Amino acid sequence: MARARKLGLHTHHELVALMSTDSPVCRAEGLAAHTQIFVQNGGRPIAATLFQVEGDMLGPDEIGLSESAWAALGAEEGKLVRVSHAPPLESIACVRQRIYGHRLGQRAIAQIVQDVVAGRYSDVHLAAFLTAGAALPLNEDETYFLTKAMVDAGERLSWPEGIVVDKHCVGGLPGNRTTPIIVAIVAARGLTMPKTSSRAITSPAGTADTMETLAPVDLDVAQMREVVATEGGCIAWGGAVRLSPADDIFIGVERALDIDTEGQLVASVLSKKIAAGATHVVIDIPVGPTAKVRSAAAADQLAGRLSAIAARFGVQIECIRTDGNQPVGRAVGPALEALDVLAVLKGEPDAPPDLRDRACLLAGAILELGGAAAAGGGLALAETTLTSGAAWTKFERIRAAQGGARIPPAAALVEEITARHSGRVTHIDNRRIARLAKLAGAPDTPAAGLRLAVRLGDDIAAGQPLLSLYADSQGEMAYALAYAAANPDMIAIAG
Amino acid sequence: MARARKLGLHTHHELVALMSTDSPVCRAEGLAAHTQIFVQNGGRPIAATLFQVEGDMLGPDEIGLSESAWAALGAEEGKLVRVSHAPPLESIACVRQRIYGHRLGQRAIAQIVQDVVAGRYSDVHLAAFLTAGAALPLNEDETYFLTKAMVDAGERLSWPEGIVVDKHCVGGLPGNRTTPIIVAIVAARGLTMPKTSSRAITSPAGTADTMETLAPVDLDVAQMREVVATEGGCIAWGGAVRLSPADDIFIGVERALDIDTEGQLVASVLSKKIAAGATHVVIDIPVGPTAKVRSAAAADQLAGRLSAIAARFGVQIECIRTDGNQPVGRAVGPALEALDVLAVLKGEPDAPPDLRDRACLLAGAILELGGAAAAGGGLALAETTLTSGAAWTKFERIRAAQGGARIPPAAALVEEITARHSGRVTHIDNRRIARLAKLAGAPDTPAAGLRLAVRLGDDIAAGQPLLSLYADSQGEMAYALAYAAANPDMIAIAG
Repeated sequence: MARARKLGLHTHHELVALMSTDSPVCRAEGLAAHTQIFVQNGGRPIAATLFQVEGDMLGPDEIGLSESAWAALGAEEGKLVRVSHAPPLESIACVRQRIYGHRLGQRAIAQIVQDVVAGRYSDVHLAAFLTAGAALPLNEDETYFLTKAMVDAGERLSWPEGIVVDKHCVGGLPGNRTTPIIVAIVAARGLTMPKTSSRAITSPAGTADTMETLAPVDLDVAQMREVVATEGGCIAWGGAVRLSPADDIFIGVERALDIDTEGQLVASVLSKKIAAGATHVVIDIPVGPTAKVRSAAAADQLAGRLSAIAARFGVQIECIRTDGNQPVGRAVGPALEALDVLAVLKGEPDAPPDLRDRACLLAGAILELGGAAAAGGGLALAETTLTSGAAWTKFERIRAAQGGARIPPAAALVEEITARHSGRVTHIDNRRIARLAKLAGAPDTPAAGLRLAVRLGDDIAAGQPLLSLYADSQGEMAYALAYAAANPDMIAIAG
Repeated sequence: MARARKLGLHTHHELVALMSTDSPVCRAEGLAAHTQIFVQNGGRPIAATLFQVEGDMLGPDEIGLSESAWAALGAEEGKLVRVSHAPPLESIACVRQRIYGHRLGQRAIAQIVQDVVAGRYSDVHLAAFLTAGAALPLNEDETYFLTKAMVDAGERLSWPEGIVVDKHCVGGLPGNRTTPIIVAIVAARGLTMPKTSSRAITSPAGTADTMETLAPVDLDVAQMREVVATEGGCIAWGGAVRLSPADDIFIGVERALDIDTEGQLVASVLSKKIAAGATHVVIDIPVGPTAKVRSAAAADQLAGRLSAIAARFGVQIECIRTDGNQPVGRAVGPALEALDVLAVLKGEPDAPPDLRDRACLLAGAILELGGAAAAGGGLALAETTLTSGAAWTKFERIRAAQGGARIPPAAALVEEITARHSGRVTHIDNRRIARLAKLAGAPDTPAAGLRLAVRLGDDIAAGQPLLSLYADSQGEMAYALAYAAANPDMIAIAG
């Protein structure tokens, strides 16, 4: 037994326990790497990765717990918990088989996903599972099993309406904040679109982060149902309803390895949509050299796999290839993107035309897929809905129903980054633009981020602004400026 | 800049930094998983994995460092270090290519190993590299490049003698402590055997741990040379001379994943031997259901690969298949194994015959390989050297040269585990026996471990002792007894 201590340590999904090197457990386990122990507080034991600590941080009878382990245990400060050796996880044997090229069946994949969601997988196990699925790509059956396991490991919503529409962007494009605009257009036309969105995992803004600067998004299922019943649509944070909780865990490790596999991507996208109760889904696949999908052929293959797996769940999918060569709109960061969204919805003259056009294209496809527009008539209907002000009115009603409109915050500090020489903008690196906005503080500081002053093909003079950086503190601004200075070619200028 | 704080946190090879969630760096990086930062203390920056912590453990201007990061930085308590974002490691792109099936060249593998040794790889990166080499096994060229890179990443010894013999056991057999006996026999016959051994990484005892209960083993290169010049052999801890430092890092992650790949194993074994300056090496390959190598065919294939790669370094190898069905000798744990070694060397009547026979077999092969015995005459010469007392005399001289003989410590507590029913011993699980000895405190508590009372094929009665457990504290004893109770079939009794 050991006394529980809350350390305030953020280790993401991984459950971590710290014990003194002088504790009996540490003396027994030795200093071997990657030791797992069982910790129990009345209920089921959790498996935690053991780190050892010398000195006075912890007494020999204490166990320090990460935030994730604390929550999983339901521990109380100073109360005793039981500590024992962890038996090996059975599902790790399945991961090992998969590494050596044996295909996995439904039961094995379900067990792996359950153990992942329970926090029983350490980072090395997660990395091995994902690497195995990159070295020998998941086949269609495995992808289906993984999708199903990820749906089953979380909550699943259902809606009274026969047709429930949804959309997803495969990602990698900063500023691609079409969702609030699309929900407003589509709901104004009478379709049901109970949109749940993520907060950023590794990007400078998720749709939930952006929407949160415009209205409350922490809705529980009952609140979502109420908003959708009256307005036909909502833009809520999905985290409160725990849809496909394995997804965020896998994504964190995939980002660290910078690997994207088709099977994992399909399972990630579809598990969230299926868990959210969608029946008809439009998927935006941006294609570009620094987007997630880099060629039209890759986009087509991904679209084929998405449709095939979705069909096994009775869900209809339409994939739309879009331009992924540069960020969408002008802004990257929650509040700055929110201002772009408002400008499009209000029809302001300086609203970014690419964001507007992309939102109408996708909304048009959803209107057709959901039966609210005739084939070929979706785009025009979406545009009318926007220009008539009907979408803006609907957005205002949704904001009110979600708890009231908010004004996006403004950053305390702005710095301009200018061109070092004259020429034409030939390349904008989506990944490094996103990283720069993050380093300025987005999304944790909602006002932070950047606003691009140029787009591909622009001719610019030396000294002309390329972008403005927004931050709330000198420390973050300096951190971001140093990154910008070290990466002058994130906006490439030729000539 | 941030003030350095030593946390006393053991994270093995991984360099870990903790910063307050209120620090500018954490606000900029956000709570994304697996973030790496650069930390600099005058010299080259190190890359560390960032964990974030709430509350009063650290102030917003402080950075807490793991023991590994502290040592790598040469930090001083309270002194300022520079913190910045970490640029992506170039060699990770090579790992990614390897995951997707592209073979790696010499330069790429060298860069990966250098980054691993510098602590720049997080656990997820290490797991991905090792998994990729399991999913698509390293070919002969890659294995050679990896071996060479591992040799080059550390120190390399050279000896004036033309022939330098060595031995290695592929592992997985608890109690297989032949090395001190072999060195004594071989050195007594005039061969040069400057043996460097490991401490346990995940096992209950390494040869260095066992030898340390008999004599000092922390020799630096100069001390090793002095002992070898006068006695022809030594049994030193290899860690002080930093031979193939990547090896321990890889092994830690392989154990966590429980994957063994031939390429990694060959590079592990040979890089240590080549770095130690060996020219003629005998390799013990135990074969058994719970040993590392599980079939004669697998042993032959491994032997072929070992010989082929060794030849490219001009090193001569002889592989010997041995019985890997059960632990060797009676004891598992540093001091207990040391007593077995002493019994064999002194020719005591109750010395474990299997340990004696195995040591003579391997020593005989070395005597032949090194030219000290005619072909076919090695075993007899080894046995004579042991029975005549020449080996014991040589061992005593080596102990004196290394700093003086020690008496192995005795454990404070002993508990007997008895048979639940009568029958014949049909199976002994090497892995669980090793784990049990570890949980009792071995190797950190040198006196801890276990002593087997039975061997395969023994007929035993219910209540008869199967093994004795040795521990120094009630906590460790209880922890180990709980494991034994949960695993009654680690010694299987049929009938």
